[in-house]
Amino acid sequence: MTDNAPLPQGSVIGILGGGQLGRMLALAAARLGMKTHIYCPDPDSPAFDVTPRKTVAAYEDEAALAQFAAAVDVITYEFENVPAATAQFLAARKPLHPGARPLAVSQDRLAEKDFLTQAGVGVATYRPVHDLVGLHTALAEIGLPAVLKTTRMGYDGKGQRTLRQADEAETAFAELSPKPLVLEAFVPFTKEISVVVARNAAGAVKAYEPAENLHVNHILKTSTVPAAIAPETALLAVAAAETIVTALDYVGVLGVEFFVLPEGAQHPLLVNEIAPRVHNSGHWTEAVCVTDQFEQHIRAICSWPLGDTTRLADVAMDNLIGDEIAALPESLGTGIRPQLYGKAEARPGRKMGHINRVGPAIARN
Amino acid sequence: MTDNAPLPQGSVIGILGGGQLGRMLALAAARLGMKTHIYCPDPDSPAFDVTPRKTVAAYEDEAALAQFAAAVDVITYEFENVPAATAQFLAARKPLHPGARPLAVSQDRLAEKDFLTQAGVGVATYRPVHDLVGLHTALAEIGLPAVLKTTRMGYDGKGQRTLRQADEAETAFAELSPKPLVLEAFVPFTKEISVVVARNAAGAVKAYEPAENLHVNHILKTSTVPAAIAPETALLAVAAAETIVTALDYVGVLGVEFFVLPEGAQHPLLVNEIAPRVHNSGHWTEAVCVTDQFEQHIRAICSWPLGDTTRLADVAMDNLIGDEIAALPESLGTGIRPQLYGKAEARPGRKMGHINRVGPAIARN
Repeated sequence: MTDNAPLPQGSVIGILGGGQLGRMLALAAARLGMKTHIYCPDPDSPAFDVTPRKTVAAYEDEAALAQFAAAVDVITYEFENVPAATAQFLAARKPLHPGARPLAVSQDRLAEKDFLTQAGVGVATYRPVHDLVGLHTALAEIGLPAVLKTTRMGYDGKGQRTLRQADEAETAFAELSPKPLVLEAFVPFTKEISVVVARNAAGAVKAYEPAENLHVNHILKTSTVPAAIAPETALLAVAAAETIVTALDYVGVLGVEFFVLPEGAQHPLLVNEIAPRVHNSGHWTEAVCVTDQFEQHIRAICSWPLGDTTRLADVAMDNLIGDEIAALPESLGTGIRPQLYGKAEARPGRKMGHINRVGPAIARN
Repeated sequence: MTDNAPLPQGSVIGILGGGQLGRMLALAAARLGMKTHIYCPDPDSPAFDVTPRKTVAAYEDEAALAQFAAAVDVITYEFENVPAATAQFLAARKPLHPGARPLAVSQDRLAEKDFLTQAGVGVATYRPVHDLVGLHTALAEIGLPAVLKTTRMGYDGKGQRTLRQADEAETAFAELSPKPLVLEAFVPFTKEISVVVARNAAGAVKAYEPAENLHVNHILKTSTVPAAIAPETALLAVAAAETIVTALDYVGVLGVEFFVLPEGAQHPLLVNEIAPRVHNSGHWTEAVCVTDQFEQHIRAICSWPLGDTTRLADVAMDNLIGDEIAALPESLGTGIRPQLYGKAEARPGRKMGHINRVGPAIARN
């Protein structure tokens, strides 16, 4: 089989990570007649409930990884922090999509910003920070306010400090170092939007419309489509997303988060970050698109023709976080399509499920 | 738990039957955060690929049935030919939805027609046939052409003979007896349509729009929505479907097949048959409805609020039968949402998957 021949139905897709994204990928794979095998160290992984094939082992367990690779036809993942050694070990045995490069780029904010800049996609001004002196130099160049971030393992607002005054630099540096750091100019954005885009091995690229995202406590709360942005901003966002997957020689679905800047800004849009996987802000696609992001990812990694991203209705996706899940099923009113992750324990801040509110006129939160 | 309290997320739904309907029910159950346990005698059942919980045993194996009942919170089925003793055995241990009565009614054409007639829903004129003399008497009353059918286990055109001349009666009777038989008036229908309807234990009822069905070799080939029928015919069909589930005190999704008669006929519609389960002619709902028939069935049997049957676009569903599956994935053009059943062997006449063609103007086959 060449890399571009479609994987036949009945093939086994290996998925690293057993959270809700792995679970929804497995459900979509089943709709295409594929079998799935979930690999996750957590024995209570929600994705284990939707397939008979699983491996419970550490991502560093080479014996388990070798057995997993032997049991599957293609490998993908639901999270960007797959260890580089794990990715390398698996990619030597079976096709790994997306590949090692998108992982390396997205695991490191500095590498990501360097890549995006080289690809011609706008990002906030940034400087690597190696020590406190370097932080002061970077602050002098970038100005205040600015955001100091660890280059690795940051998510949901973790691993970052906003500096509004110069005298906050020392404390922030102390809190985040000795990890490698990057200082970014604070972006006075008016909105956050995101684009989910797919590319297959044959080079076909398809993007979904931008979603407008609302974060609460640094966690995505709501994605609304269509986004209330100018048509040319939407086109720019989609074009940037397409540029990124093409420049990465990417195979699969990728999420791109953007800041929308005020009118008159030098750049109308800046990329905040990219995620080499299906994306929380793309969950709306399952309720209103002919092909949703999960099926699109499976199509892409199986070298199938990419599906139709046409949107059939307006939609707003709400994450159900922690106890919010308890309101179901009673709160399931008209026009609501739920997706619940089957997690046993509703811890604070934990994503337990989401609902898509579908209709011609979606109420905005 | 009273019968009307919603079953909590994480509950286990037991499904009798491991074919594509059981598989799609399990996928829908997962979207509601439910676990599933599939019971099927065939070790190669396609539904076994979408859950870690299964029982491979005969439907008459009481030890296996008892173990299955103990492992689940509610029981449903994907096929109407569940043996009555099996249904009774399980219903004594856990809630069985739909219950024993819809099974008994739908397993026997004569009981079905008696029930429908009592409920005030029109069916073709019919007479039970006990012997050859009775067949001749029935033919004299009903006239020619007429259709002689076994009362039990008929599907996809099996177990029936159309009589166009009186001298065909003896051969047809010999071929179908000694099974109990029923003679039905031949219905000169112009179209076949169907309605999928749901009812939950609280008595809420919701129907989908009628689909227009095209059969080839007695197997459903295409369902198109909207059906090309008069609005009042659509309303009549939906009303009849709602009458049926209410009269049966039904819990779950039920499919009702209708014949549409030529203008000027005494009845514009006659019911052909009912099926106490999700229905092939309702597969279009998964591509274009906020809530599809599979999620609706799971909601109903779990005493959840019924979902929204709103249709977001025109659609045509094509069954992929036998070798037709081989054209995929290459033939997956724009606007097509596939659902493949993961069956290993594409035998002639076997339903291997289906596609939904979605768009504002669907080409009719």
